Amino acid sequence: MDRHLTLAVCQTGPVQRSATRAETVGRLVHLLERAAAAGAELAVFPEMALTTFFPRWTLDESEIEGFYEERVPGPQTQPLFDAARRLRLGFALGYSEIADEDGRKRRFNTMDLVDADGSLVGRYRKIHLPGSEASEAGTTVHLERRYFEPGNLGFPVFAYRGARIGLALCNDRRWPETYRMLCLNGAEVVLIGYNTPAVLAEAPTLDHLRMFHNHLPMQAGAYQNTVWVAAAAKAGVEEGQALIGGSCIIAPTGEIAALAVSVDDEVIVHRADLGLIDTCRRVNFDFARYRRPSEYGLIAERAGPVA
Amino acid sequence: MDRHLTLAVCQTGPVQRSATRAETVGRLVHLLERAAAAGAELAVFPEMALTTFFPRWTLDESEIEGFYEERVPGPQTQPLFDAARRLRLGFALGYSEIADEDGRKRRFNTMDLVDADGSLVGRYRKIHLPGSEASEAGTTVHLERRYFEPGNLGFPVFAYRGARIGLALCNDRRWPETYRMLCLNGAEVVLIGYNTPAVLAEAPTLDHLRMFHNHLPMQAGAYQNTVWVAAAAKAGVEEGQALIGGSCIIAPTGEIAALAVSVDDEVIVHRADLGLIDTCRRVNFDFARYRRPSEYGLIAERAGPVA
Repeated sequence: MDRHLTLAVCQTGPVQRSATRAETVGRLVHLLERAAAAGAELAVFPEMALTTFFPRWTLDESEIEGFYEERVPGPQTQPLFDAARRLRLGFALGYSEIADEDGRKRRFNTMDLVDADGSLVGRYRKIHLPGSEASEAGTTVHLERRYFEPGNLGFPVFAYRGARIGLALCNDRRWPETYRMLCLNGAEVVLIGYNTPAVLAEAPTLDHLRMFHNHLPMQAGAYQNTVWVAAAAKAGVEEGQALIGGSCIIAPTGEIAALAVSVDDEVIVHRADLGLIDTCRRVNFDFARYRRPSEYGLIAERAGPVA
Repeated sequence: MDRHLTLAVCQTGPVQRSATRAETVGRLVHLLERAAAAGAELAVFPEMALTTFFPRWTLDESEIEGFYEERVPGPQTQPLFDAARRLRLGFALGYSEIADEDGRKRRFNTMDLVDADGSLVGRYRKIHLPGSEASEAGTTVHLERRYFEPGNLGFPVFAYRGARIGLALCNDRRWPETYRMLCLNGAEVVLIGYNTPAVLAEAPTLDHLRMFHNHLPMQAGAYQNTVWVAAAAKAGVEEGQALIGGSCIIAPTGEIAALAVSVDDEVIVHRADLGLIDTCRRVNFDFARYRRPSEYGLIAERAGPVA
C-alpha cells in the first residue's frame, strides 16, 4: 500500500520579549498558510513557539506569568486553531504550559499535536530538561529546571491521518532513548521543536560543532529507529542571543531530505514516503528479531556511568 | 591531568579461504609493527580477522571446523602475541571462538583485548548477531546465527594503560544500546571490528548508503556517549564479495579524526585526548544529572515496537 504524509517544518525567526502573543500567533498562522499552499498534511512549529526563550534569564514569579498558557487553545492562540480547520492542516505546537494538576499549579515544557479540525490529538511534556535551577558559574544561563517540571506523560505516540506520530522537544533529541522509546511505542514520524544557542560558555572549543551536533543525533535517531524526523528551530538573534536554525526533515535512511537555510521564518516541505520505513527495516532493523532487551537492563536502571 | 592514548586501527584487505593461518597472522604482525612504528599504544583488528567471513556460505560441520580457534593464543596465533610483547603494544583481535562451556562445545563471535605483554585483558562475545540460521530468499546469505550463539558476557569494560576500554563487533555498532551499555559500564574508548558487505540483496535501493550507514551510528555513538571509537574493517573483495572499508577513529565530538582510504591492509593512527571526554560531558552530557532511566523501561523490556 502506498503511504505518504507530506510534512512541513515551520521554522521561526526570533520572538523578542516585546512581541505580543497576537503578533507571534499571526506569524505562525502565516507559516501554516504557506505550508498548506505547499501541500503539507502535517506541520511542526518550534519549542516554546509563542514566546521568547525566557529560561535565558533569572526571573521572579511576577515576571514569568505571561510566558505560560493556561489552556490551549486560549483566546490568544485561537486564530492558529481556526487556521488549522480552515486549511485542513494539523500541526504540533511547542509552548509553556501551566496546568492545575494534583491540586497545584504545575509547569511543563509542552508540545501539543492538533488535528486538522483544530481538536487536540495528544500532548507531550518534555522529559529531558537541560540546564539548571539557578545560574551556574562558567555556563550559559539556561534555567529550564527552574521554570519547568520534567514531563510526566512518558513518550506517547498518536494516530494522525493513518500515521503514528511521536513528539519530542529540544534537548530530548540528543538522547538515543527518546527515539528508541518512541520507536517501541510504534512511532513512524517524530516531530521535534527546539531553541538551541549557537554558542555556549561552558565549552567554547566545541561551538563550531553546534550545527553538526544538532543534526547528528537526529539523523542517527531516524536511521536507528527507521522513523521520519521533522524538526523545527526557533532561530536567529533573540534578545541578543544567537539561536541556530538548521530545521530539517530527515528520512528513515538518516538522510536530510529538506533543510532550512535561513535563521528566520521559513517553511520546508517533504512528501514523506512511509513505505521507506519498511524498506529500512529489511536491512538490519527487524527490531523484534534482533534487539536484545535482556542485555540492556542498565539503561533503565542507572543514570550515569559506574564510578 | 593530561591523558592521551594513541590508537591504531589495523584495517585488513580480504582474507581468502585459501589463505593459511600463518599467512594471515603474518599480515597482522606486519600491521602491528607499522602501528608501533607510528607510536600506537593500542591497536584494533577486524572482526574474524584470522579467516575469511565464512557465514557467507552454508557449510556443514566438517567444513567449518578450521575457522574456529580452540584457544587464543594457540600455536598458529602465537606470533601475534609475541609481536605484542616485542613491540610493547596491546591489541584487540576479532576471531571465531569455540569454547568448552557448560559441558558442550559453544561457538561465539569473539574479540579479545590483549595487553602489551601478550596476556589476556578481557573478552567480549558479540551480542547482536545479524542474519539468519539458514539462507532466506531475497537476502544476501549471512549465516552468523547458524555458526554462533549470542554473546553471554554482557558489555564489559576493561582497564588498559589507565584507560577504560569497551569492545563491540560489526552489527553491534548499529544499535545505540551497545554504546550506551558500554558508557554506563564506564567506557572511555570503544574498539570495534567489522565485516560489512558493500551491497545487499534485500534492499538494493539503499546500497549507495552503506558507508554513510557505517559511520552515522558510530559517530552518534561516540557523541552521545562521549567516547572515542576506533573501528577496523576487513575490506575489499573477499571470495567474490565486496566488503566496505571506511575504518576510522572517531572523537567524542562525533568527528572522524582518522579514516582509512583503501580497501586493503592499512594502518591509521590518532593520539586520542581522553580529556576531550570531560569537555564533551560539560555540554549536555552530564549523564547522572540528565538521563531519566525511569522513563526508559520499555528499552529493556521489549524487543520490537508495539503492534
